Amino acid sequence: NTCDSIVVEDFRRKLKYFFMNPCEKYRARGRKPWKLMLQILKIAIITFQLVSFGLSNQMMVTFKDENLMVFKHLFLKEYQDQRVDRYAVYTKTDVYDHIYYIIRRFINLQNLTVGNHGYETMQGGYIPLILCQEFYRNSNISPGNDTFNIDPHVDKGITPLDDNSLSKDVNLSLDFKRLLSVNIYLTLKAINLQTVRHHVFPDCYDFTITIEFDNRACSGRIKINLENDVGINECKDWNVAGTFMKNNQLLLIDSMVIIACFMSLILCIRSVCSGTQLQLHYTAFFHTYYGKTVSWSERWEFVNGWYILIIVSDTLTIAGSALKIGIQTKDLTNYDVCSILLGASTILVWVGVIRYLGFFQKYNILILTLRAAFPNVIRFSCCAGLIYLGYCFCGWIVLGPYHEKFRTLDKVTECLFSLIIGDDSYSTFKKMREKNYMVWLFSRLYLYSFISLFSYMLLSLFIAFITDTYETIKVSFALQLKVWLKNSHSQVFH
Amino acid sequence: NTCDSIVVEDFRRKLKYFFMNPCEKYRARGRKPWKLMLQILKIAIITFQLVSFGLSNQMMVTFKDENLMVFKHLFLKEYQDQRVDRYAVYTKTDVYDHIYYIIRRFINLQNLTVGNHGYETMQGGYIPLILCQEFYRNSNISPGNDTFNIDPHVDKGITPLDDNSLSKDVNLSLDFKRLLSVNIYLTLKAINLQTVRHHVFPDCYDFTITIEFDNRACSGRIKINLENDVGINECKDWNVAGTFMKNNQLLLIDSMVIIACFMSLILCIRSVCSGTQLQLHYTAFFHTYYGKTVSWSERWEFVNGWYILIIVSDTLTIAGSALKIGIQTKDLTNYDVCSILLGASTILVWVGVIRYLGFFQKYNILILTLRAAFPNVIRFSCCAGLIYLGYCFCGWIVLGPYHEKFRTLDKVTECLFSLIIGDDSYSTFKKMREKNYMVWLFSRLYLYSFISLFSYMLLSLFIAFITDTYETIKVSFALQLKVWLKNSHSQVFH
Amino acid sequence: NTCDSIVVEDFRRKLKYFFMNPCEKYRARGRKPWKLMLQILKIAIITFQLVSFGLSNQMMVTFKDENLMVFKHLFLKEYQDQRVDRYAVYTKTDVYDHIYYIIRRFINLQNLTVGNHGYETMQGGYIPLILCQEFYRNSNISPGNDTFNIDPHVDKGITPLDDNSLSKDVNLSLDFKRLLSVNIYLTLKAINLQTVRHHVFPDCYDFTITIEFDNRACSGRIKINLENDVGINECKDWNVAGTFMKNNQLLLIDSMVIIACFMSLILCIRSVCSGTQLQLHYTAFFHTYYGKTVSWSERWEFVNGWYILIIVSDTLTIAGSALKIGIQTKDLTNYDVCSILLGASTILVWVGVIRYLGFFQKYNILILTLRAAFPNVIRFSCCAGLIYLGYCFCGWIVLGPYHEKFRTLDKVTECLFSLIIGDDSYSTFKKMREKNYMVWLFSRLYLYSFISLFSYMLLSLFIAFITDTYETIKVSFALQLKVWLKNSHSQVFH
Amino acid sequence: NTCDSIVVEDFRRKLKYFFMNPCEKYRARGRKPWKLMLQILKIAIITFQLVSFGLSNQMMVTFKDENLMVFKHLFLKEYQDQRVDRYAVYTKTDVYDHIYYIIRRFINLQNLTVGNHGYETMQGGYIPLILCQEFYRNSNISPGNDTFNIDPHVDKGITPLDDNSLSKDVNLSLDFKRLLSVNIYLTLKAINLQTVRHHVFPDCYDFTITIEFDNRACSGRIKINLENDVGINECKDWNVAGTFMKNNQLLLIDSMVIIACFMSLILCIRSVCSGTQLQLHYTAFFHTYYGKTVSWSERWEFVNGWYILIIVSDTLTIAGSALKIGIQTKDLTNYDVCSILLGASTILVWVGVIRYLGFFQKYNILILTLRAAFPNVIRFSCCAGLIYLGYCFCGWIVLGPYHEKFRTLDKVTECLFSLIIGDDSYSTFKKMREKNYMVWLFSRLYLYSFISLFSYMLLSLFIAFITDTYETIKVSFALQLKVWLKNSHSQVFH
Repeated sequence: NTCDSIVVEDFRRKLKYFFMNPCEKYRARGRKPWKLMLQILKIAIITFQLVSFGLSNQMMVTFKDENLMVFKHLFLKEYQDQRVDRYAVYTKTDVYDHIYYIIRRFINLQNLTVGNHGYETMQGGYIPLILCQEFYRNSNISPGNDTFNIDPHVDKGITPLDDNSLSKDVNLSLDFKRLLSVNIYLTLKAINLQTVRHHVFPDCYDFTITIEFDNRACSGRIKINLENDVGINECKDWNVAGTFMKNNQLLLIDSMVIIACFMSLILCIRSVCSGTQLQLHYTAFFHTYYGKTVSWSERWEFVNGWYILIIVSDTLTIAGSALKIGIQTKDLTNYDVCSILLGASTILVWVGVIRYLGFFQKYNILILTLRAAFPNVIRFSCCAGLIYLGYCFCGWIVLGPYHEKFRTLDKVTECLFSLIIGDDSYSTFKKMREKNYMVWLFSRLYLYSFISLFSYMLLSLFIAFITDTYETIKVSFALQLKVWLKNSHSQVFH
Repeated sequence: NTCDSIVVEDFRRKLKYFFMNPCEKYRARGRKPWKLMLQILKIAIITFQLVSFGLSNQMMVTFKDENLMVFKHLFLKEYQDQRVDRYAVYTKTDVYDHIYYIIRRFINLQNLTVGNHGYETMQGGYIPLILCQEFYRNSNISPGNDTFNIDPHVDKGITPLDDNSLSKDVNLSLDFKRLLSVNIYLTLKAINLQTVRHHVFPDCYDFTITIEFDNRACSGRIKINLENDVGINECKDWNVAGTFMKNNQLLLIDSMVIIACFMSLILCIRSVCSGTQLQLHYTAFFHTYYGKTVSWSERWEFVNGWYILIIVSDTLTIAGSALKIGIQTKDLTNYDVCSILLGASTILVWVGVIRYLGFFQKYNILILTLRAAFPNVIRFSCCAGLIYLGYCFCGWIVLGPYHEKFRTLDKVTECLFSLIIGDDSYSTFKKMREKNYMVWLFSRLYLYSFISLFSYMLLSLFIAFITDTYETIKVSFALQLKVWLKNSHSQVFH
Repeated sequence: NTCDSIVVEDFRRKLKYFFMNPCEKYRARGRKPWKLMLQILKIAIITFQLVSFGLSNQMMVTFKDENLMVFKHLFLKEYQDQRVDRYAVYTKTDVYDHIYYIIRRFINLQNLTVGNHGYETMQGGYIPLILCQEFYRNSNISPGNDTFNIDPHVDKGITPLDDNSLSKDVNLSLDFKRLLSVNIYLTLKAINLQTVRHHVFPDCYDFTITIEFDNRACSGRIKINLENDVGINECKDWNVAGTFMKNNQLLLIDSMVIIACFMSLILCIRSVCSGTQLQLHYTAFFHTYYGKTVSWSERWEFVNGWYILIIVSDTLTIAGSALKIGIQTKDLTNYDVCSILLGASTILVWVGVIRYLGFFQKYNILILTLRAAFPNVIRFSCCAGLIYLGYCFCGWIVLGPYHEKFRTLDKVTECLFSLIIGDDSYSTFKKMREKNYMVWLFSRLYLYSFISLFSYMLLSLFIAFITDTYETIKVSFALQLKVWLKNSHSQVFH
Repeated sequence: NTCDSIVVEDFRRKLKYFFMNPCEKYRARGRKPWKLMLQILKIAIITFQLVSFGLSNQMMVTFKDENLMVFKHLFLKEYQDQRVDRYAVYTKTDVYDHIYYIIRRFINLQNLTVGNHGYETMQGGYIPLILCQEFYRNSNISPGNDTFNIDPHVDKGITPLDDNSLSKDVNLSLDFKRLLSVNIYLTLKAINLQTVRHHVFPDCYDFTITIEFDNRACSGRIKINLENDVGINECKDWNVAGTFMKNNQLLLIDSMVIIACFMSLILCIRSVCSGTQLQLHYTAFFHTYYGKTVSWSERWEFVNGWYILIIVSDTLTIAGSALKIGIQTKDLTNYDVCSILLGASTILVWVGVIRYLGFFQKYNILILTLRAAFPNVIRFSCCAGLIYLGYCFCGWIVLGPYHEKFRTLDKVTECLFSLIIGDDSYSTFKKMREKNYMVWLFSRLYLYSFISLFSYMLLSLFIAFITDTYETIKVSFALQLKVWLKNSHSQVFH
């Protein structure tokens, strides 16, 4: 009857409008694409925020790194830049020499250093360097007789070396058989004046330096390692001529980002909700008029994947920006979480832009191909992944003892992955050369078969998949475009 | 009527002749392919010009580079070739030692150097070396108390160290807390005698050497850098036995190149103009006889893209050769602009040769495939570019502080680009190893996803595009060849 | 007749059941997939075994490697980590210096070493270091006159250097013209205390160190090499506070692995046997009712390839685990064989998992494509292999004398293989640069042609094969799935 | 008529037999495949010859290389293996020091060297070392005044330093302004005793060592280079216990190779001749019976390409083996020519084996695909080559002065080629970093565009070609196999 047909026709128009893209909506009902404009604005300010964040980080990281280098050159005896992972001592006298060297350099620091390093002061005097030994509580080892007697509890001995104790000669005696490690802790302060030239306020840095003599392997080799923990504070008292960027200007941008993301979040959630409601309507409508239930895949058509992407990206951005405000006001320090949140959201934001390219028909083919090929690619990756896993375990077990790159499981994974895309294969082959003949032969078999299998067989199969998907999509595209709307709804109305 | 049909037939023949290639024109009306011959001649002399330019540059660059190396070895204390980016000092005494070393070496230069280096003379004596300090006007920094007082204006202090001042002991005192940099300027002269053996006239070189002690980071590390500015002049007075290539012989070639390019430019502009005129005729004709307007894409058919290419290339060559004449006569020195102009034009000239291969049918398929695939490739690159941009920003922000290769945005771009084509992936993975666990995990996810996505997914899609385009072109080629002329014009006449 | 048709129908059902996968069997007759569950259990405990084996190896290998490094630093004069393959001496005095250095270091070892190294004791005193010379029995060489007189039999001279002989000055005199090598043997003991922290019992290590002065090349260069043979024993007497993982716990896991693999082996052999019996039945049945013989390819259908794979893998695992028990109880030492057996079996086990993915139809395409492409790939590899072989021989002969990477046949193989997948090509080109012009030219031709041929031509052909196979499989798949069972059997019954 | 038809039928059978492969011939007329068996025998002995040649070369090259290393360590002051291309001096005193060091080391050689080096004797005494200076005849250079006066003729001054002249102190004085180079020539002798252990007779080696102080660049840097020319002779007088491989045994193999190749050459030439004769017959026959001429492409069908390949390969092998006999009898020394001849022939021999695989139908597809794709590939390479050439010239001109890898044209070619197959791109990008901004920008554009264009666009096009060719061949193969013989001949008889 007519009433019904009017209802059907009305609902049909509603559905059609729902599945239109912004341009079409504007043409159809003149609705301005507010959401689209908001997204573009959002991308602009997020990019600005990111760049300013990145640049200020760069300055901070450079200062931190250069100080680490300076401390290594100041405190480590005969340190050379190139041999950083080979910096170790092998004899008792060398250990004592290195420790005394550190102490002497620390006392004379003010006469040596070219930078503006200062001691941390506490109750008048400066905080002394602290020498901390770790050793087994009790151990009596005579490898010559194959006997040992060990109590694996670890004791600590702490010797603070302040002004007084240093004026008398320090007398260290280490029991190397029980020794696990010697740590020397220093605290120094510095001001990052470099930022003055970029019109940014200088910060005060607290460096907690740990020099570790690591004997945990008990192999006769004591590795020496210098680490540098940094705390960044606002300076207590300052006086600078000239104008500087205020901290609140930076906060302003962060706030704007949060507001923009919040608005975009609200709008997207609204769209998703209205989509869900329409879907419920549609299901009910369909049930009433035709008595059949709607399949799940058809129901999912009402949830726009792009909105989900935007919602996730906005949530990440808001969390990241909130953290960033905390960091900038020196309340929080978990810098890494903040950068990961902002970084991940950036990828999503830029991927989201592809959606707008998809409004043009020719771009759409590309996006559809990727979407259609996705399940096959995942399936394919599963199979390839299983063989890959087998190779990883095998390489670790068999070649681990003979090859640097196969020492740990994650190194194996990385090495094999690099081999697939054609990197570093010669050096991987080469490093195995002078070993045990049977293992050498196995390694050749292993590497040749792995590379052939993954670099050729699977790459080819991959290309076959994508090429095939592309052809299918292309053929069905003219059809699909016309049929698409019909496919999901119009069958309802006939 | 007959008159009309004669006009139509005449115009048709005109059009056909216009769209013929040189061989066909020769066969049709016996017109000698002057333009073709001019192009071939042009390529020959441009190549000759380029090779002679390149060879003379090579000689000059080698001399410059070797002198830079010599100066580094002469003036920098304990300099070693391999550690060039790690050449830095960390203590106050080292700074003074290095400065005094430079001064002593400069004074004794004539007894030391093996080459023919001379001091620049001025008013009887030689120009002294100049020591120039930069420091903040006023600064009072005590990092121990977290307080500072700084005036970011930079003052300069210049100390010329001439014969007299050197006979007395030089007494330097640097205020390291305020110090930004110490620059030492030397001027030396040399003659590039090496060219004598190639029968080219030797030139006189003025070296302005700057040794910079860079403390701008205020981190306690002073980087030392030696730079070498070169001025090349004709020597004032010379006397050489034997015959030498005259400078005007080189100028002759440049002039020939300019003339050839100018002629080719004129001819191409004429062809483009006649094409445009014919197009106007055609539009009018079409309008008169059929009353329809001609579409833009059809109008563009009259402008031969190859002519545009030649015009651009010729313009670049003429500009480059003119600059080169200026350089050879020692009037101009912007060598880089000249080489970029000539270099860019060379690529275009050689690409232009492909046109002549296109006259053979089989080659044409290749060119047509590339042209047909171009829009799709661009579209595809847009989408890929967006994701790439997202990854770049994300990598910079998150991994920048932990990984050398992600320190600046342009480094990130280069690193990711190298990963796509399968280079340096293992070392990229490896350098991240010993960091903060969360960031380490993120970096693995980031790298594995990036490489899989770009190196497999997009490469496959690319291959799918091109393969598809090639098949399309191949199928339609037999057809196309016959239809082509018809397609654009003959429909007019039926 | 009916009797016959019942027999046929019965046999037909039997066959159908035989060719079902576990899921279908469960659905058809409710048979629980015991075999499948056993396989999953097996994979779990094998993985656990492998990981624990790998981790304990890692600890052992680290200790061994670090000790090797320690011995090199202790006994080799002026040893530096980076130049390991260039550690050699060239003058007589250097040889004596190095030998005396080793002796002095060995005597003072206890005062020097930071680790817990002890001398091996024997009858009260420690085992002395042994100096062993090898020289030609008789040789009289005067290269100045082009004459020599040599007896190629090798004599050995052994000098044990114990406490007494060392108290007097050691007087060595080597006849360098006859000398082939000087070997110095040391024995040291150590205990790997590191494992205590991982709650694993420490083992006692016997290091047999060989320092070789290798003059076999008689070229004036004596290479010095330190090798380190390790024997691992349980310590004789120990006393440790705290609880430790017992050795029998590890043996338990190994035993479980052996039991699981044995059961899986039995089940698979049973299945293969029943398959063979069914095949015999089928052949007889076919012969009786139709009078035709069954083709071999049809007979092979009854042997499931996956079972063969599992049988091989189980056999390897059982052998490997048995060996591992032997190693853990310190009875056996052939660690490499054990790890190769376990490693190879792991790859097979994980490849075997793909079988279960093949039960899903979509995954099956992938597996079928690989199987179908296999013969073509092998054929293709044969042809490519022949050309590869030609290039290998040619490279070895011509470039061997001029290029490090072409020195031996296996290096050539590895180098060319790396070039195919796009690695290290620039450095391969570069290292040839400054040689003999004709060979240089040949090397360019050789490398350009090889890379073009293999990296482009053959990769493309490979992709063509796989793409083609995939398309064929995909098209025939819908068909195949239905026809498969019919194809092999049903033709019998119509 | 019948007579004609008998002639036709007879000729037809002749033709068919001619186009059969060996297996078919054997089946048809029982002709044993002598040629095939000869080829197999030939491959076996050629491989044996090659391997023995390679192994003996390896021994010789090792001895030569090790001696070079020894001489560098003995005669060059403070020489270190790693810095070979940076071994240079920069001050006058260093030059004198290095020269005196060489002289002192040479005199004391017998006390220093560990190997069996002897002086070359002549008339009782040993040949002295010779010091040879090269300098411009007359030069008066004052770079301070920009004036010079030079006579580019080169004079030589030779100073032999024999026993007497060395007992007095050598007094050198070099005029560095005129100096081009100082060469020191030494002659030493040695015997390669290493071969004794492989039961090969030792040879006597004459080393002519040249130590060059190269000041040709006149830049203040004198490069020091040690080169080593070797003459290999049979020793005059020897006495070795034990049995040794005789030289004539090696000559036996070479002779066998020459004989086998000669026979194969004769047989192939005969086949080619008979093919040509048949073709002439065929042409005449065709002309007589049908009055039409035979096309050239049809005539070429009678010349079997594989025979041409074998003829070329045999010629190369014979030439190479003849040379090798000359080398082994110490008459000739042009070792490089010999190895290139043998090497090139090996590739051809192995490629020739593919022919026999082509007798199996499935392999044939592969070979036919390659053959069919060849013209397209060549055409494609022409176009790509033109663009490549443009990039090479452009890179050389613009980036040459700023980038090591673009210094000379052949380096550019190699670098770009490596970039195409995905090698070394990051380091190529990286090395350009710190230069002039405009050139830096150009280099980015240059590299990104080059890599994108060649690594993606052209690879894809290549794959498209091959895939397409493969499909074409595959489709037409069933047809082709049957039609092939008909196609070329049977049309004659209908």
